Amino acid sequence: MIVLFTDFGANDLYVGQVKAALVERLSTATPVLDLLHAVPSFRIDAGAHLLAALQPRFPPGTVFFAVVDPGVGSEREAAVVQADGKWYVGPDNGLLSVTAARAGHARTWRIAWRPPALSASFHGRDLFAPVAAWIADDALPPGAIEPTAALQVRLSAADLARVIYVDHYGNALTGLRAQNVSSKATIAIGGRRLRCARVFADAAADGAFWYANSIGLVEIAAPGTSAARLLGIGVGDPVEATD
Amino acid sequence: MIVLFTDFGANDLYVGQVKAALVERLSTATPVLDLLHAVPSFRIDAGAHLLAALQPRFPPGTVFFAVVDPGVGSEREAAVVQADGKWYVGPDNGLLSVTAARAGHARTWRIAWRPPALSASFHGRDLFAPVAAWIADDALPPGAIEPTAALQVRLSAADLARVIYVDHYGNALTGLRAQNVSSKATIAIGGRRLRCARVFADAAADGAFWYANSIGLVEIAAPGTSAARLLGIGVGDPVEATD
Amino acid sequence: MIVLFTDFGANDLYVGQVKAALVERLSTATPVLDLLHAVPSFRIDAGAHLLAALQPRFPPGTVFFAVVDPGVGSEREAAVVQADGKWYVGPDNGLLSVTAARAGHARTWRIAWRPPALSASFHGRDLFAPVAAWIADDALPPGAIEPTAALQVRLSAADLARVIYVDHYGNALTGLRAQNVSSKATIAIGGRRLRCARVFADAAADGAFWYANSIGLVEIAAPGTSAARLLGIGVGDPVEATD
Repeated sequence: MIVLFTDFGANDLYVGQVKAALVERLSTATPVLDLLHAVPSFRIDAGAHLLAALQPRFPPGTVFFAVVDPGVGSEREAAVVQADGKWYVGPDNGLLSVTAARAGHARTWRIAWRPPALSASFHGRDLFAPVAAWIADDALPPGAIEPTAALQVRLSAADLARVIYVDHYGNALTGLRAQNVSSKATIAIGGRRLRCARVFADAAADGAFWYANSIGLVEIAAPGTSAARLLGIGVGDPVEATD
Repeated sequence: MIVLFTDFGANDLYVGQVKAALVERLSTATPVLDLLHAVPSFRIDAGAHLLAALQPRFPPGTVFFAVVDPGVGSEREAAVVQADGKWYVGPDNGLLSVTAARAGHARTWRIAWRPPALSASFHGRDLFAPVAAWIADDALPPGAIEPTAALQVRLSAADLARVIYVDHYGNALTGLRAQNVSSKATIAIGGRRLRCARVFADAAADGAFWYANSIGLVEIAAPGTSAARLLGIGVGDPVEATD
Repeated sequence: MIVLFTDFGANDLYVGQVKAALVERLSTATPVLDLLHAVPSFRIDAGAHLLAALQPRFPPGTVFFAVVDPGVGSEREAAVVQADGKWYVGPDNGLLSVTAARAGHARTWRIAWRPPALSASFHGRDLFAPVAAWIADDALPPGAIEPTAALQVRLSAADLARVIYVDHYGNALTGLRAQNVSSKATIAIGGRRLRCARVFADAAADGAFWYANSIGLVEIAAPGTSAARLLGIGVGDPVEATD
């Protein structure tokens, strides 16, 4: 299975081109699954923590095509990571680094292969898609990737005390892992202190709360309305947990 | 075929997780089709009438994964409906009830099965997706569902005289079935009275009109512009047909 | 492969109905790929130039379902084009005409077949989807299409000096092909004159620029922000290249 995780926008003309590049090469019935194309644009840190939170539910052998790449066309390397039996293909700009650092076992490579025609601005289509397809089919050309000691850009693997995503309901996901926050803790955000509720149905009708969401992160929500609008918060805003 | 009908948002990180849960279990080449992930959030009534209008074109044996679930984590039951040869899996909160009530023949079950790990907030992924996959493959574990006399929450099956969806063109779909409205009737909405036109090309260039849309509902539109913006209308607004 | 190119909106309830109509008929494992459902509404000219720029990367035999159809229900014909080994199915309103005119070899047909039930407003589902499925499977019923000398509506095949698409990053694609514009040229748009950069990483941090994008068009961008918002530009706005 190839899993797509990008900031390309589900509605734009980029994902279709990536899929065409994959379909053209995939020799098997490998499914291609859209996980998220709305990683906040230009926010590598948010993407790195979202990917780390989302990947645990996917089975070994999954190949993640993970591309948030504001520096495309610059000198940044193109990377492949194998971490706990899953593969990750994307830019070496920090996006894969949180997942790699938290893995029990990780190996890294740089992508040495270049296509005959490489656009300056769309390595997702021209470079990462072919490599992801080859890995999924166990058909990497010799020399296409070269082992490296580590990724060049490594973000902190500690929890990120910021909003990393706002969904269309207006819920704000943070980079705090719920396993590291007591259910008695309050979360400070947007000038407010929020208490924990188990689920929407348990929350007081009149206010925002935090809860441990379904991918293990601290999430800010509000019953029947947009917490982001209610609190005036967005991606990048700091949060603080206090016991 | 499994057909997805939710308010999860096509752009958010929920649909991909549902598909991963389906793919993991589907043993056959069952296609998974995105019908709609933009059911108005928290609007079970709108979703119930949209589902009832959309389902007739799908063939017998189709399994609808239908989840609009603001009460997830509360005491609401999880339901399976078989209606006129098609299956529906989702919360017992009214969403499936209009389709069930309008069917010539319907049976209902509650879902007794629970996964080893059930998140409090994402039953779509953890509970409904496995059950939908098993039904599609005719592989329900014994005892997974238990027959019930009826759904617990049953909305009126009569036409809903409200706007139930606004599409990206700005057209406003209502819960009125066109078969129940004379083509000579006017539709009152947003302080205006609108006449019927067969199609956009027949409408006067300067104003809104109503027409019988391609899924059999009364729809409010305006040539070359957004009727919703022109009339200042949105989901939930009342409409009235007058002969 | 059937490739979908429409203004139906990826989030709306139309694409799913088209796919259901395709899946119902496709007898083979033909993949169906979403290329773009956000062609600017009602902008046939923009769609025609986007399609012409996007199609070259798809292999011979591809069937494009290309529908931007504000005149649905009027007297416009339904067309099939074969151009340089690829197929195009859609309204005869100009949308297919730029691709046809630029092809080395093109043939055209009108669709004579009509389904038993043809909605007035959704020929994409009722008419174009069945025909696209039959072409992909080489199973057109006899007489379903009839040869014509040419499309009835033919737009100019010359470059279109306008913005034809704004993506979610705020980049503005134009209908100018980069092969026809010197890298020393400036592009006038929104009261500004923009210079060329090879790629985002090369641009000055403080301003907009143009570059040859990954589908060969002149595109207006700005580092780390929305060029469309920065310059106050949108689809349809004129651009001018000056050496």
